[in-house]
Amino acid sequence: MTATLTQLEQHDRFIRRHIGPNNAQQAAMLDAIGATSLNDLTAQIVPESIRLPQALGTGEPCSEAEGLSSLRQVANKNNVFKSYIGAGYYGTHVPSVILRNVLENPGWYTAYTPYQPEIAQGRLEAILNFQQVSMDLTGLDLASSSLLDEATAASEAMALAKRVSKAKKANIFYVADDVFPHTLDVIQTRAECFGFEVVVGPASEAVNYDLFGALLQYTNRHGQIDDRSELIKALHDKKAIVAVAADLMSLVLLKSPGEMGADVVFGSSQRFGVPMGYGGPHAAFFTARDMHKRSMPGRIIGVSQDTRGKRALRMAMQTREQHIRREKANSNICTAQVLLANMASFYAVFHGPQGLKTIAERILRLTDILASGLQSKGVTLLNNRWFDTLTLDPLTKADVTAIKVRAKAAEINLRIDSETRLGISLDETTERQDIYTLFEVILGPDHDLDVAVLDDELLQASAAQSGIPESFKRTDPILTHPTFNRYQSETEMMRYIKRLENKDLALNHSMISLGSCTMKLNAVTEMLPISWPEFANMHPFCPLDQAQGYAQLIEELSDWLVKITGYDAICMQPNSGAQGEYAGLLAIKKYHQSRDESHRNICLIPQSAHGTNPASAQLAGMKVVVTACDKDGNIDMDDLTAKASEMSDNLSCIMITYPSTHGVYEESVKAICELIHQHGGQVYLDGANMNAQVGITSPGFIGADVSHLNLHKTFAIPHGGGGPGMGPIGVKAHLAPFVAGHTQVKTGLASDNNGAVSAAPFGSAGILPISYMYIKLLGTKGVTESTQVAMLNANYISQKLSSHYPILYTGRHQRVAHECILDLRPLKEASGVTEMDIAKRLNDYGFHAPTMSFPVAGTLMIEPTESESKVEIDRFIDAMIAIRNEIAKVESGEWPIDNNPLCNAPHTMDDIIDPAFDTRPYSREQAVFPTEAVKANKFWPSVNRIDDVFGDRNLFCACVPMDEYK
Amino acid sequence: MTATLTQLEQHDRFIRRHIGPNNAQQAAMLDAIGATSLNDLTAQIVPESIRLPQALGTGEPCSEAEGLSSLRQVANKNNVFKSYIGAGYYGTHVPSVILRNVLENPGWYTAYTPYQPEIAQGRLEAILNFQQVSMDLTGLDLASSSLLDEATAASEAMALAKRVSKAKKANIFYVADDVFPHTLDVIQTRAECFGFEVVVGPASEAVNYDLFGALLQYTNRHGQIDDRSELIKALHDKKAIVAVAADLMSLVLLKSPGEMGADVVFGSSQRFGVPMGYGGPHAAFFTARDMHKRSMPGRIIGVSQDTRGKRALRMAMQTREQHIRREKANSNICTAQVLLANMASFYAVFHGPQGLKTIAERILRLTDILASGLQSKGVTLLNNRWFDTLTLDPLTKADVTAIKVRAKAAEINLRIDSETRLGISLDETTERQDIYTLFEVILGPDHDLDVAVLDDELLQASAAQSGIPESFKRTDPILTHPTFNRYQSETEMMRYIKRLENKDLALNHSMISLGSCTMKLNAVTEMLPISWPEFANMHPFCPLDQAQGYAQLIEELSDWLVKITGYDAICMQPNSGAQGEYAGLLAIKKYHQSRDESHRNICLIPQSAHGTNPASAQLAGMKVVVTACDKDGNIDMDDLTAKASEMSDNLSCIMITYPSTHGVYEESVKAICELIHQHGGQVYLDGANMNAQVGITSPGFIGADVSHLNLHKTFAIPHGGGGPGMGPIGVKAHLAPFVAGHTQVKTGLASDNNGAVSAAPFGSAGILPISYMYIKLLGTKGVTESTQVAMLNANYISQKLSSHYPILYTGRHQRVAHECILDLRPLKEASGVTEMDIAKRLNDYGFHAPTMSFPVAGTLMIEPTESESKVEIDRFIDAMIAIRNEIAKVESGEWPIDNNPLCNAPHTMDDIIDPAFDTRPYSREQAVFPTEAVKANKFWPSVNRIDDVFGDRNLFCACVPMDEYK
Repeated sequence: MTATLTQLEQHDRFIRRHIGPNNAQQAAMLDAIGATSLNDLTAQIVPESIRLPQALGTGEPCSEAEGLSSLRQVANKNNVFKSYIGAGYYGTHVPSVILRNVLENPGWYTAYTPYQPEIAQGRLEAILNFQQVSMDLTGLDLASSSLLDEATAASEAMALAKRVSKAKKANIFYVADDVFPHTLDVIQTRAECFGFEVVVGPASEAVNYDLFGALLQYTNRHGQIDDRSELIKALHDKKAIVAVAADLMSLVLLKSPGEMGADVVFGSSQRFGVPMGYGGPHAAFFTARDMHKRSMPGRIIGVSQDTRGKRALRMAMQTREQHIRREKANSNICTAQVLLANMASFYAVFHGPQGLKTIAERILRLTDILASGLQSKGVTLLNNRWFDTLTLDPLTKADVTAIKVRAKAAEINLRIDSETRLGISLDETTERQDIYTLFEVILGPDHDLDVAVLDDELLQASAAQSGIPESFKRTDPILTHPTFNRYQSETEMMRYIKRLENKDLALNHSMISLGSCTMKLNAVTEMLPISWPEFANMHPFCPLDQAQGYAQLIEELSDWLVKITGYDAICMQPNSGAQGEYAGLLAIKKYHQSRDESHRNICLIPQSAHGTNPASAQLAGMKVVVTACDKDGNIDMDDLTAKASEMSDNLSCIMITYPSTHGVYEESVKAICELIHQHGGQVYLDGANMNAQVGITSPGFIGADVSHLNLHKTFAIPHGGGGPGMGPIGVKAHLAPFVAGHTQVKTGLASDNNGAVSAAPFGSAGILPISYMYIKLLGTKGVTESTQVAMLNANYISQKLSSHYPILYTGRHQRVAHECILDLRPLKEASGVTEMDIAKRLNDYGFHAPTMSFPVAGTLMIEPTESESKVEIDRFIDAMIAIRNEIAKVESGEWPIDNNPLCNAPHTMDDIIDPAFDTRPYSREQAVFPTEAVKANKFWPSVNRIDDVFGDRNLFCACVPMDEYK
Repeated sequence: MTATLTQLEQHDRFIRRHIGPNNAQQAAMLDAIGATSLNDLTAQIVPESIRLPQALGTGEPCSEAEGLSSLRQVANKNNVFKSYIGAGYYGTHVPSVILRNVLENPGWYTAYTPYQPEIAQGRLEAILNFQQVSMDLTGLDLASSSLLDEATAASEAMALAKRVSKAKKANIFYVADDVFPHTLDVIQTRAECFGFEVVVGPASEAVNYDLFGALLQYTNRHGQIDDRSELIKALHDKKAIVAVAADLMSLVLLKSPGEMGADVVFGSSQRFGVPMGYGGPHAAFFTARDMHKRSMPGRIIGVSQDTRGKRALRMAMQTREQHIRREKANSNICTAQVLLANMASFYAVFHGPQGLKTIAERILRLTDILASGLQSKGVTLLNNRWFDTLTLDPLTKADVTAIKVRAKAAEINLRIDSETRLGISLDETTERQDIYTLFEVILGPDHDLDVAVLDDELLQASAAQSGIPESFKRTDPILTHPTFNRYQSETEMMRYIKRLENKDLALNHSMISLGSCTMKLNAVTEMLPISWPEFANMHPFCPLDQAQGYAQLIEELSDWLVKITGYDAICMQPNSGAQGEYAGLLAIKKYHQSRDESHRNICLIPQSAHGTNPASAQLAGMKVVVTACDKDGNIDMDDLTAKASEMSDNLSCIMITYPSTHGVYEESVKAICELIHQHGGQVYLDGANMNAQVGITSPGFIGADVSHLNLHKTFAIPHGGGGPGMGPIGVKAHLAPFVAGHTQVKTGLASDNNGAVSAAPFGSAGILPISYMYIKLLGTKGVTESTQVAMLNANYISQKLSSHYPILYTGRHQRVAHECILDLRPLKEASGVTEMDIAKRLNDYGFHAPTMSFPVAGTLMIEPTESESKVEIDRFIDAMIAIRNEIAKVESGEWPIDNNPLCNAPHTMDDIIDPAFDTRPYSREQAVFPTEAVKANKFWPSVNRIDDVFGDRNLFCACVPMDEYK
């Protein structure tokens, strides 16, 4: 019987690609756990009152070709002008070898945060290189592994200043009036929550205030370069901390801010080979003096050693992370921009110091020529020194009007500062011909200037004619480490990238079942569009009429997310989950303010919450009150009711996670929302577990008012080895006027003039095509089935492992939600084998460890996601059971507690070639090939277990001298 | 001092990316070998009389961004219409997971031919899968690992038929008149050389001839499906071999040709996820009955076992290769289309039998609907059965004219067979909407047909309404092997691809210094454009006015190659080096014919020539006469002079290689050319060593008349793991009218009506952008410096190794050319250690072996190319010296001859976990980490040394049953 066309349309095909278990596997798994269908299982797990009464309405699924073709139409609506806007975003050439082998390579983009450093030495080295670049160029001692963007880095600098300044009583943070307006905006938003007073004025006047810190920009927003050494000295005399925003490319040529005395230097590394992407993602660098190391925001990669004494990298001082500091936090940063930091560091590795210098000198030279030509025609420049940026001021209004018309005709964007002022920033992509075009646009077609002649004339004149006078030039060498001086041929570079990649376990090797992190498939078809020039090469501040493709993308994606969340509006600005929390709480805060209830500042947070929650509340200037949970991790309603009543007058909100961090769909959630509302509070629902809601229930349906969505968890943006994240928020209509706005881009919404939380108006817009494609391809049917299979997979694991390891929490019908928690405490008690041993032993079996000791110490939380097939899940289950049997041998005394495959895990090649191995009570084969499946697909940890304490005691966060490798 | 703009333009930058050693490294290497500069070294090596008097004039170097931008302009001139032309080329969706992880992944595209199977099990498995797909779908027992294209596969089938047919006296090869015209064309060209008589007529009349073989096509060029079982039986009764050209996608639904009795089945696998690329490259499949296994053309992958008894794959029956058969050859095929065969096999793996069936049924269903609609409106079809192709005949001339106008307006291409006949072939990319468009184009806008209604009507009617009646349907299951039934989710597919990739050593791991194969950098910027739709999605027979971009690309590339070779014209058609030889010799042959000197049929070939040379001469119908070489591999002028005189009347040509296969620039080469010309002969200069000529000398300058160019050696097309190759020929003006033409595409050249050598007019046009970018980016300066550094690298290795291994040949000043030959025979004599031992031991050191035993048995020929840095070359030299020291231990008796790291190489993970390892006289560390450098970047061979003889004796060339893996 021939099937009909409709049956054959294949629109559902991508669903079968995204979801791991095929129909037969699903049937077998359902059978194994005693459910008759996905819907039956869903009904067992999710209380009926919580379940959505109807389908989402996010559209039919489509094939990959259809999805790409439809997004291509959207992309074509973006009109990519050449950008001279600058302001932190510059054209750059992504080296092809990096584009293809890093950004477009699942070996790099699907990796997780390097919490398991033994199987992550590759990207740890790349990030260490990023830190080295940051330190070398800024002239400071210590670097963060990257922050979210320049503007949020500025507010981290402010927070650090407050924390470490000896001017304890001062409450003023002084911001020079020549920093980027969007940087100032984010600082002001943050300062208001902290209760700091931000004073804005000429840099030189900072000394007139009692201040704990000051922010300068070098070069400033007008392109001017000023030596601030004296000013910094004066501010130091006042015990103020001086932070300097800087441009990484200019620092290749300029005297470093560190040399001028700055305490903190930060900025964007975007122009080191990362596309503008309409605002991001890009990695911000952040460096500080060594004495501030305990106060650095974000992660730092440091050097330590493994059990064999071999150099090994890992995240240093993890105890500093916000999840430890919780309600004392003055930062909630929880992720980094690893993939982008790696691209930037590889850019520096590939070009090397000489290549970077050539690039920077070329930009300077072209700017010199542009300046010289314009000045020769009587144009007045606001700045008398420059690297890449000229500000033309004053111009007549008529001139500016005419220039705007010519610029549009030439398809270029200038920075229009005012009716009489405009700016031009050149970059690596500027060519000689572009300077002619700029002359024509600024001076009109009859400018009569010749670039080559101008270049000659400048050469004849004194060197002082350059935008960077000698006294401002860098004299210290940069990037002298061998890593930056040996990979300049593409062959060597390709192999270096590959060598590092091979050290890291990513999703292209095996399941990464990290509870709460949702490591699902990042489909190639979802990834392809981010490399399209129409998405990659847009400046975030370009006129909106050029960005109609992005506008449509954001509108459609927002519409789908509205349907999925049950909210009324989406704000795309927050560029990480934690940023989303902060942005959501700010909306709540402003909402209360708008109703003259500014006093409402209590944020209730259940004991079981993720540590980011209290940190974010703290950041939003709220007072955290913790509410109790019962032994199953459920919110204790009595305690909550009591506290809500008690705090009723001042209640701002509650922050909850759903299903709970313990993996249970609490039936009481609607009652909780009602309770909070009764007391005048708002409900913030953490979106971390959204993957267990889509199509089944929704925060809006449950009764919450605002949530952030981790697009990098539920909506298929890859984790990039530890970033980018993307954390838009959904809000009910009453909160919509209170979401983040932006100084540079006005979309016509009520929220436009609100303070910003990120540098760019739509956050990391450049990766939104991924989530767009995800929802487009799967359609309502696919996203819903994904949720159901995520639950099926988790319950299958839970059931299969329950006779080997106790499952910590289950809900209705003894089911878990989309993840399950193994309680290892009894085992540890009985055998001495720790959760760490099991995690590292899993590496030997070729698996990344699940989430360790969250939300409960001594546990493993496993989230397989819907993308893992039964075959892979069975392989994982087999490994866990085999490990359990190994533990039994320790329990029984067959293997000593201090010499067994668990405590010695992970095993490396060094181990098995070691003749001393023969003294171990187990064989080499047992060590590294514990099952047949491992033989077929071995992954080798590149170092043995790493000593964290040694590394933190001997903190070293730069590239290791080469001789130490020997 | 600020540098000037001109100094900073960075146009040379790509040169520094392509060439491995930087300036400092080059200086150190020059110093080490006693030369003062690259030019000095060149002068030492290349005799002055041979050196070009001036620079090439192929243009200035440019940056990668400039190169991409300029090629983008060229690409934009291609106008990509939707193609319904069919004829062996169809639209297809390249699955994104395969696009990114195979075609765009250096781990796959930079690998070499799997001559070292222990480090190539990944692609060997992928090719084995391709063979399994071929066998399953054609219904035959044995498959080739791929041939160049459908038309050349047809001529291989003809040659096989002649070889194996029991009708020994018959000289007729009968070709059904409904095969593709370009297939017939290539057959006729080939048959003429062999002296076969090709008779073309209705298939059914084949039985009327005394024939050794017949070619049928199923489905035929009109889309008709005929059961040929009876005919084949009748032909078998006449002892004829029956070859059937078939379409792979149709075979998913159709009864197999094997079931009908065919002896050989072949065709293109292009539509299994390989872009059309304006003609190629694509892999042809080729299957035959098991009894013909010793007569199969090309390579076959077979299953054998390693020294541990583990299943292991390798190329089976390599002794059958043309370089052994030499002048008895009736095939010169020397490469395969591995990268494309792998893409096609992964396509089958990813879709699985059910997915393929859905795709094929959908194509059939849409064709049914199209046929039904057209017939309902009175259109007459030539074919009454179909899979995807309908031929409309007769139409009125007026209809055809109107249809052509409407088709152009709708931007679609139909197949215009004549003034009253046209064809439409649907494919995987055809959508429902396309059928409406086709109705409008064929019937005019008022056609009033509804696809959904037609579909319904067909459903109501009997199944006989389908283009494939029940009796023609396949009833046997296909692709039942587990490999085709477990990787349907993208996650599983990505991991399967990665798992295989990890088994293979490619250029992204380390140097592959294969003498004569020129494994240089395949830069990403050169590779990027082949994925652009404007190059990837063009049908080779589309109207030339749509392919203006390709026309410009081919013209500019030809112009550069003319300058580089010193010839007057280039023919792009040959799609491998061996094809180029054949095409070049054909041009010589036709040239003689044009001068009424058809009797000139002697081809002189020096002893030292590559085996392909005599095979090609044989194919071109020439008589090979071997001339002597002296002990240094130089042509013996006395012998040559004598033979040339002796053969003078019948001398057709000489085939020489320059510099010689022994790596020497013979000073006599000009005299040789003159001598041959004096005797009325032509000079064919093999382009294999072109990498030692570019910018320094040229075949045209030396005096040769024709050469093929291995674009996949000298001009940066990657080897793809064993193909694609690309072998255009350059000719002097007098030969230009005699190069290959094409039946379907007429370019207006004198050669247009000549016979074809390949299926597509411009060969594998889809990869020409790679060579275009290579020359564009490097410019004259870069291509010349590349040659010089290739010589520097080879001489550096030669000098550094000469005190450890004798260098077999050197030329002037004891220099080698771009490669050097280590003579291992004395060592073998002294120690018993073989060249094979050394080659396999190099695997343990992380290197691919150099070329073994060519051109002299018992040697290794090393060609580092210009892309390898001094660091990598030193690493290689260190490895070779360390190996020499190991050999010394065997010589001294410290290690027994039958138990040492050399004879046991390569070492696997299985070895070092084996407790029995302790009985060896060397440590595990010595086995697998013989140097510190290896520790930093270990590559693990996945099997131990493979037993070739076992495999050939127990020939098994299909996927291994899964239980045997256990």
